[in-house]
Amino acid sequence: MVDSKGSNGCSTVTRVLFCGPYWPDSTIYTREYLQKFPFIQVDEVGLERVPDVIQNYHICVVRNRHIDLDIIERATQMKIIMQNGVGLEGVDIGAATEHKIKVARIPGCTTGNAIACAEMAIYLTLGVLRKQKEMDDAVNRRELGTPAGETIYGKTIFVLGFGAIGYELAKRLRVFGVKILATKRNWSSNTLPCDAELLVDKKGGLEDIYKFAGEADIVITCMALTNETIGIVDNKFLATMKRGSYLVNIARGRLLDYKAVLSHLESGHLSGLGIDVAWMEPFDPEDPILKFSNVIITPHVAGITEYSLRTAAKIVADVALQLHSGEPFTGIEFVN
Amino acid sequence: MVDSKGSNGCSTVTRVLFCGPYWPDSTIYTREYLQKFPFIQVDEVGLERVPDVIQNYHICVVRNRHIDLDIIERATQMKIIMQNGVGLEGVDIGAATEHKIKVARIPGCTTGNAIACAEMAIYLTLGVLRKQKEMDDAVNRRELGTPAGETIYGKTIFVLGFGAIGYELAKRLRVFGVKILATKRNWSSNTLPCDAELLVDKKGGLEDIYKFAGEADIVITCMALTNETIGIVDNKFLATMKRGSYLVNIARGRLLDYKAVLSHLESGHLSGLGIDVAWMEPFDPEDPILKFSNVIITPHVAGITEYSLRTAAKIVADVALQLHSGEPFTGIEFVN
Repeated sequence: MVDSKGSNGCSTVTRVLFCGPYWPDSTIYTREYLQKFPFIQVDEVGLERVPDVIQNYHICVVRNRHIDLDIIERATQMKIIMQNGVGLEGVDIGAATEHKIKVARIPGCTTGNAIACAEMAIYLTLGVLRKQKEMDDAVNRRELGTPAGETIYGKTIFVLGFGAIGYELAKRLRVFGVKILATKRNWSSNTLPCDAELLVDKKGGLEDIYKFAGEADIVITCMALTNETIGIVDNKFLATMKRGSYLVNIARGRLLDYKAVLSHLESGHLSGLGIDVAWMEPFDPEDPILKFSNVIITPHVAGITEYSLRTAAKIVADVALQLHSGEPFTGIEFVN
Repeated sequence: MVDSKGSNGCSTVTRVLFCGPYWPDSTIYTREYLQKFPFIQVDEVGLERVPDVIQNYHICVVRNRHIDLDIIERATQMKIIMQNGVGLEGVDIGAATEHKIKVARIPGCTTGNAIACAEMAIYLTLGVLRKQKEMDDAVNRRELGTPAGETIYGKTIFVLGFGAIGYELAKRLRVFGVKILATKRNWSSNTLPCDAELLVDKKGGLEDIYKFAGEADIVITCMALTNETIGIVDNKFLATMKRGSYLVNIARGRLLDYKAVLSHLESGHLSGLGIDVAWMEPFDPEDPILKFSNVIITPHVAGITEYSLRTAAKIVADVALQLHSGEPFTGIEFVN
């Protein structure tokens, strides 16, 4: 049973900090789940205020805040740094470990995040193939039957990073009538359902990315951002892609090299770019990259559905209650 | 062999009229295919000029021009009235028959039209579920992680009119993890592949449309416009749909009753509307229905890809050559 006598070691109130005002519903839902537990306090502060208040909190939900050594040294009461999704690229995990702080993510398969992201990848792919902005312009100019778009049918699609999202994506794309190429660091790891490999026409590792890029009509990036993957879609990668091919990113903005993407849009080498994530977030709506008529962007909502938000919010709430009462944690995956 | 001695009975030049300036690429491609055949003339005129010039033509490609008794009586040299797609709802087929004019469509399965339309239906469905306009607003307001959308996963989808498009649509939607309801006038007709019925969880006829509408989270209209189907999505149908459900139309605008749709958007009964077709086309971009943030429209391009346009344009060109030389027609389906 959870009671108000906290086991967090420092306080009878367990304090949860959401970093930044983004994904606002997740804070609201977490508070809803915790409204009967006044000994759990949930706060949300602007990104820039995090260093000033971090010392008061036991759990920190990072969102897109960088949690570096400086922040970690200030976080003297911190027990858990967690994402309310999967991406932990902003967290200095080594520093957290040294300071005896656990770092955790919420696996995408439990929240519906992977399914939602796969659907968004298909939405963005169709959006670029059908020329979303040109369609809007045609409506406004009272034109009909133009622009002519392209179908997914018949295309070769390279899923760069075949994890939980890549799997859900390939499952859906397959019946559109496509050829699927996919790379994964370790195909022998047991993290995917047993039918996963059957969905893929050609599987490869990191060493195959240029070969696959050269065969694909559409590249969809679905991988985590790490030191190894940052800027993986660079000038070499883009130049290897076919002229007239398309790029979709629903993972992390910095998987793509900004200047390389910009120059391949300018040259017309890329026929379209669809992104749910950007290099800086929120992304400047006046950024030159968004001026291209063949670029579409959504506001980092690929995994965001009411279901995924509520499920993740419930997990954050449970983790807070579990930390408070000293019970085992559920619903999260520790990475250190 | 085709030569310049026409068998059209009236002229050594066979004349093809495209009605209206819409779907401009189809005229261009037809001309391209015919550039070596100067005895075939391809013209395009504005919709309002059709009655004045129709008497000069042997083949008429209707697009969205009404071809009524008055026009048909003027079309004294006309042999074939055809669509460069499937919809013939504007043609008075009885009057054409009386005047010994054949009426034809191009089946959607040969041009990729059905596949392209099915993909567009999925694009529009994802667009309304993810709240396309709100996403754009969020980007412009520099918000992140909002709006929360919904997934196709888990939904019950009613495919109203299970023809070639409905089949391609169900095939794709199935793996998204949905329940599919579908109605069709005649399930025993042999027009669909043999696996078609396996894709559908509940099949019904016209008498089942209200029952199915009441069970669905999303209704997608995929049927031809006829006297029987005009305004089929009316007040009764919409009121039977669940509060908070979605409507997508990639077939013909007047399948939906305009006032009924407007009032169900105003009341919030409909959570979203995605349409590729409208009541009048081109549709007024200032129409009140487009002011709702949960309504998205595309400019009647569902079936329009370079592949489908080129294939249809080639068929029109072939039909002109075949009429000229008296050879059998290929690629079209006569309806009278």
